[in-house]
Amino acid sequence: MQSFAAVDVIIAKRDGRELSDAQIDWVIDAYTRGIVAEEQMAALAMAVLLNGMTRGEIARWTAAMIASGERMDFAGLGKPTTDKHSTGGVGDKITLPLAPLVASFGVAVPQLSGRGLGHTGGTLDKLESIPGWRASVSTAEMLDQLRGAGAVICAAGAGLAPADRKLYALRDVTGTVECIPLIASSIMSKKIAEGTGALVLDVKVGSGAFMKTVETARELARTMVDLGTDAGVRTVALLTDMSTPLGLTAGNALEVRESLEVLAGGGPPDVVELTLALAREMLAGAGLADVDPVPALADGRAMDSWRRMIVAQGGDPDAPLPTSREQQVVPVPADGVLVGLDALKVGVAAWRLGAGRARKEDTVQAAAGIELHAKPGAVVRAGEPLMTLHTDTPAAFEAALADLDGAWVIAPEGTRPADRPLIIDRIA
Amino acid sequence: MQSFAAVDVIIAKRDGRELSDAQIDWVIDAYTRGIVAEEQMAALAMAVLLNGMTRGEIARWTAAMIASGERMDFAGLGKPTTDKHSTGGVGDKITLPLAPLVASFGVAVPQLSGRGLGHTGGTLDKLESIPGWRASVSTAEMLDQLRGAGAVICAAGAGLAPADRKLYALRDVTGTVECIPLIASSIMSKKIAEGTGALVLDVKVGSGAFMKTVETARELARTMVDLGTDAGVRTVALLTDMSTPLGLTAGNALEVRESLEVLAGGGPPDVVELTLALAREMLAGAGLADVDPVPALADGRAMDSWRRMIVAQGGDPDAPLPTSREQQVVPVPADGVLVGLDALKVGVAAWRLGAGRARKEDTVQAAAGIELHAKPGAVVRAGEPLMTLHTDTPAAFEAALADLDGAWVIAPEGTRPADRPLIIDRIA
Repeated sequence: MQSFAAVDVIIAKRDGRELSDAQIDWVIDAYTRGIVAEEQMAALAMAVLLNGMTRGEIARWTAAMIASGERMDFAGLGKPTTDKHSTGGVGDKITLPLAPLVASFGVAVPQLSGRGLGHTGGTLDKLESIPGWRASVSTAEMLDQLRGAGAVICAAGAGLAPADRKLYALRDVTGTVECIPLIASSIMSKKIAEGTGALVLDVKVGSGAFMKTVETARELARTMVDLGTDAGVRTVALLTDMSTPLGLTAGNALEVRESLEVLAGGGPPDVVELTLALAREMLAGAGLADVDPVPALADGRAMDSWRRMIVAQGGDPDAPLPTSREQQVVPVPADGVLVGLDALKVGVAAWRLGAGRARKEDTVQAAAGIELHAKPGAVVRAGEPLMTLHTDTPAAFEAALADLDGAWVIAPEGTRPADRPLIIDRIA
Repeated sequence: MQSFAAVDVIIAKRDGRELSDAQIDWVIDAYTRGIVAEEQMAALAMAVLLNGMTRGEIARWTAAMIASGERMDFAGLGKPTTDKHSTGGVGDKITLPLAPLVASFGVAVPQLSGRGLGHTGGTLDKLESIPGWRASVSTAEMLDQLRGAGAVICAAGAGLAPADRKLYALRDVTGTVECIPLIASSIMSKKIAEGTGALVLDVKVGSGAFMKTVETARELARTMVDLGTDAGVRTVALLTDMSTPLGLTAGNALEVRESLEVLAGGGPPDVVELTLALAREMLAGAGLADVDPVPALADGRAMDSWRRMIVAQGGDPDAPLPTSREQQVVPVPADGVLVGLDALKVGVAAWRLGAGRARKEDTVQAAAGIELHAKPGAVVRAGEPLMTLHTDTPAAFEAALADLDGAWVIAPEGTRPADRPLIIDRIA
């Protein structure tokens, strides 16, 4: 590999020049091996954030991150693989019903997931509220489970895109998170290294999401679809609304409970709609464009698939889920129509109650979170419950209520809330 | 002091906002104490480089760097203080004759200097070629010497603007050196903390200088003059040419020898011209606008002042200066007029011969460097010596000759070289 001086690579990007393939290969490899120092990568990340990268640079950067570690290979499975990634939102438990639903059609779903940081929950945190369930699975166990249960939701091994792991932690403390080329290459390097044949991206837009506007969400989606396609992964993205929480729960065990309702053929309409839309995309990516996922929720096939997946990772699907030590009901303040319920404020309040973590080393409370009793569009009466706060640490109620200040808008009866489609766009 | 999250300060500058006084005070203090990590300051420095700082931000940043350490006070000396700073060039030995010349008029010259890095030499490196001379002087010794000899050229103590020391080392490895707000605040924080009453800035322009264009040099000069003036230091700047080396030598002992010629009333015309121009500015800053420095070079007063200064720091002014083990003459390739001699190429070649260091921990060769036998404007004859290369490590000749490729331009006889004034502008 050709060698460079780190300062020259930083200066090239700082001065708005395009980095060469050799420069990108070297800087990612040298950073992974500790030859490029953290402060040098921080300066480079800031220059990338402010001066951008071309499509070619982003593709090479992603390839270099993949090359920093091992790649998984599912070719020997004898069935198609398909995966989903969400950019994160409040109440986004979709992976939980979705993975077993898709697996029930004989497709392998290798879903490497993460833990939550900040106001958006992590899929692994949610599943860890199931007694006995473990997130850590060896590659051999993962292959076994994909052959048998069909779906596996687990933590990514340390060997997958280690450059991304290091860079992600660095960006978090250096104000370089909000950068589309770096976000796209971070997500896609892990997904491509994971070896899935097809990938559906759920790019969230709105107050509770990382992308606040449709324009930036579309740019991120387009960048990721290009990266996946160029790497031979059949990739589609849906832009979906995250201005209000998804479903009626935000919190770990609370969201598992809601997912079980969906797997039992019920559940909130928005969770069901998004689960089915993403399932159709994942099935189409796996070559099953014509199958209808709806009956599998109604007839118990998806639930059977869920139980197999949970049992395979040591979980007891029949054990009662933890409940919080304390609850506090927030009443509706006035008669009218609930026209807005802000995702970010609900997410921050749930985090404050103990559902999320402020630092990586924090633990989460399995039972903490928020249960909603109404969603935008509902007619509400003063004094009725609007939401219930759950926590094991009642001292958190006050701060959570402060976070919820201004979270809801109640308009006079007869008002129609603005029409917000759940699925805003599709990018392929 | 109000406290902030480092990431919020970085993001504010990244997004083009003006930092508040409290944010600047906090980030510099927290960085000095290791609370803001190197990678965080690197990201902030890159954001400052790309998004700039207002005059108010630069002033506060400088004040915060001064506040990170101790301040010196020369009020008790009973005589005016005046100092000079050069932004660095090839063959720039001006401090050596200048400080004793100005001191010979009863003015105190507290000249805190540095060592060289890269192709521009360091004043301390030059003086260290004098047997016995030491750069390290305590504050008490410095005050004694200012009372007696009048001039002191020494290393800055670690207590002066420690934030700048840390930030300077960081900028060097993160591609954030070329940033006028950071350059200006780095230079001026040390000069203001040093406590001089007047300051003359020699801002170099041209291939061998840090600033390649008159526009950027003028912007840097203006920024520094504003900072000094706002802090109560009488500050002027001269923009001076650095497209060709200053004088006929580049190298440590070689430049001391040339400085002695100037102090003896001789020396190359450009070195004499710049020494006198800067001396007049320094004397005017000290309240002696009417004195003429010219006779002090001719009548030995400046030389006496030099001897006192060298002796006070343990040096032997009569000891022979070191000479290089090997020399190689570069002949004039063709008859004609020397119309160009590139400062950068000569500086890099001198560095390669051993006169400079690539890394802070390297040592320099006292006798290495380049002696010029002709300057632009001279009529030259093929085969005559154009320059002599000096080194203790003859293996370096080949690389130095490669660096000199294209360093000179010889035009047909009768050609007049472009008229380049040595002193381009004055900013007060």
